[in-house]
Amino acid sequence: MSYPFLKGHGTENDFVLLPDHDGLIHGDLAPSRVAALCDRRAGIGGDGVVRVVRATAVGEGPGAEWFMDYRNADGSLAEMCGNGIRVLARHLLDEGLVTGPTFQVATRAGLRSVTVDGPAVTVDMGTPAVLGETTVSVAGRTWPARHVSMGNPHAVAFVEDLRDAGALLDPPGFDPTVYPRGVNVEFVARRGVRHVAMRVHERGSGETRSCGTGACAVMVASALADGAGPGETYRVDVPGGELSVTWTAEDRVLLTGPAVIVARGTTDL
Amino acid sequence: MSYPFLKGHGTENDFVLLPDHDGLIHGDLAPSRVAALCDRRAGIGGDGVVRVVRATAVGEGPGAEWFMDYRNADGSLAEMCGNGIRVLARHLLDEGLVTGPTFQVATRAGLRSVTVDGPAVTVDMGTPAVLGETTVSVAGRTWPARHVSMGNPHAVAFVEDLRDAGALLDPPGFDPTVYPRGVNVEFVARRGVRHVAMRVHERGSGETRSCGTGACAVMVASALADGAGPGETYRVDVPGGELSVTWTAEDRVLLTGPAVIVARGTTDL
Repeated sequence: MSYPFLKGHGTENDFVLLPDHDGLIHGDLAPSRVAALCDRRAGIGGDGVVRVVRATAVGEGPGAEWFMDYRNADGSLAEMCGNGIRVLARHLLDEGLVTGPTFQVATRAGLRSVTVDGPAVTVDMGTPAVLGETTVSVAGRTWPARHVSMGNPHAVAFVEDLRDAGALLDPPGFDPTVYPRGVNVEFVARRGVRHVAMRVHERGSGETRSCGTGACAVMVASALADGAGPGETYRVDVPGGELSVTWTAEDRVLLTGPAVIVARGTTDL
Repeated sequence: MSYPFLKGHGTENDFVLLPDHDGLIHGDLAPSRVAALCDRRAGIGGDGVVRVVRATAVGEGPGAEWFMDYRNADGSLAEMCGNGIRVLARHLLDEGLVTGPTFQVATRAGLRSVTVDGPAVTVDMGTPAVLGETTVSVAGRTWPARHVSMGNPHAVAFVEDLRDAGALLDPPGFDPTVYPRGVNVEFVARRGVRHVAMRVHERGSGETRSCGTGACAVMVASALADGAGPGETYRVDVPGGELSVTWTAEDRVLLTGPAVIVARGTTDL
C-alpha cells in the first residue's frame, strides 16, 4: 500500500509527516511502521512521525480543526513536540488546510496556539514550572542545575564552554529521587545579552540537534539567573540552528524558529 | 526549483536517486546540493547520490543506455558503488527504463553488468587483486590483515568476535606505506561453511551498515584462507543485512543482495 508523506524539520529536529485527514489510512498506526519510517538507513528517517488528521476524525478538540498525532521514532506515543508542531503548522498553511496565520492545533497535551510569520513559526508552549536546584554530571564532573518542567522534566546546567560536556555519548548522571522517570539535560553557555547557546541530551534519544521544550527550559533558567523574569525574549542557539524564546508577562513560553518542508512524495514502508 | 527524487537502499547502504534522464536538471550538480540532499536531519538523508542520466546525454558509454553518476555524501565524485548500482538497477527495471533483467550500466569505472532476479540484484564487480599481507590496529590491538583491491583498497582482518574491534569510532590504524591514500578496513568472523560476518570502517565515512566492495574483498580473503579459491559462493552478513558473493572461475566477483526503493517524490533542496 502506497501512501503520502512529507519530510520537514525545525532547527534540524526532523519529522516524517503522514497526511491522513479523515483517519482512514493510518487509523491503526503500528509502532513497527513508525520505526520503519524513522529508520535513517532503511526508511525515510526522522526523530518522529506526525500523523496529520482532522480533530473530529479522532474525537479530539473541540477548538481545533487539526490534531497532531505525534509518535517518537520508536513508535511510542508522545504528548507534544515543540519543533514537530511548528513543522506541522508550516505544512497546514502551505497546503491551505488552515486559513489564517494563527490557529489552534489539538495535541495530547491539549490545544496549542501557533502563528506562522514568514519563515518563522511560533508555538505557545504553556506555563513553565520552576522546581528548584539539582545537579547533573558527565564523566566525573558535576554541575549545579536548575530543575524546570515544560510538561516534561529538564535539568539546565550552565557551563563555561559547551565542549565541557564532552562527547555526551552516555546519559548524564542525575538525581533519581528528583527525576524518577529520567530527565532531559541541557548544557548552556552565555553568548551575550539575552543570548545563550545550548546542547541537549534527550531522555531516550541521546544528544539531538534541537529540543523545543529544552530551549524553553533553558530560556527560563537563563532569565531567572539574569534576574530577567517574565516579559523577556532570548535567542537560544542549538546545534541545528537558532531559536527565539519569549517568556511572556502572562507566564507563558513562546517558542519561535524556522520550520521547513524539504520533500514530499509517496512510500510503501 | 522542485525536482524528482527517490530514496532506496541495499542492505541499508542508502541513496538518494535523482532522475535526470536527459541531463537537463542536474547538469551542474553542486557538491553543496549533494550534501544538502544527503543531510540526515535537514535533508532527505543518504550515504550518497545517484544521478540517473542517459549515457548519451553525458558522453558516456557506448554499450550502456544509462550512466551512474555517483557522488559521495560530501559531494565528491566516486567511480562506483556496488550497493548504489544495485539500487539504481532496481529503479531502472521498476520504471521500465530497461527491458531485460540483465543489462549494462556505465560508470566512471567502466561498464558494469547487472542482473535483477526477484528481490535480488547482482552486479559484476570485476576482478580482485590480492596484494599480500599487512596489519591493522584498533585501540592498541593489532591483527594481521589481507590486502585486497577491488578498485579501491581494503584490509581484511579475521577476528574471533566482531565485538573485538570495539566501537570503531576512530579509523583503525594501518600501514601508510601500503595504503598512502587510506584504506577500508573489514573485520571478519566465521559463521559456518562458506559463511562469514563482517563489520567495515569505510575510509572517509566511518563504520557503515554495508559496503559492497568490502563484502567482495572479505569473500576473496575468506576463500583464500579456506583454500577455496575462485569458483565458490559465500554468504557475507553485514550489519545491514545479508549479501552473497561469488568469485567466478573467470576471476570475477559477483555481488548479490536485496535492493529496494522505499520512497519517491519531489524536493527543492
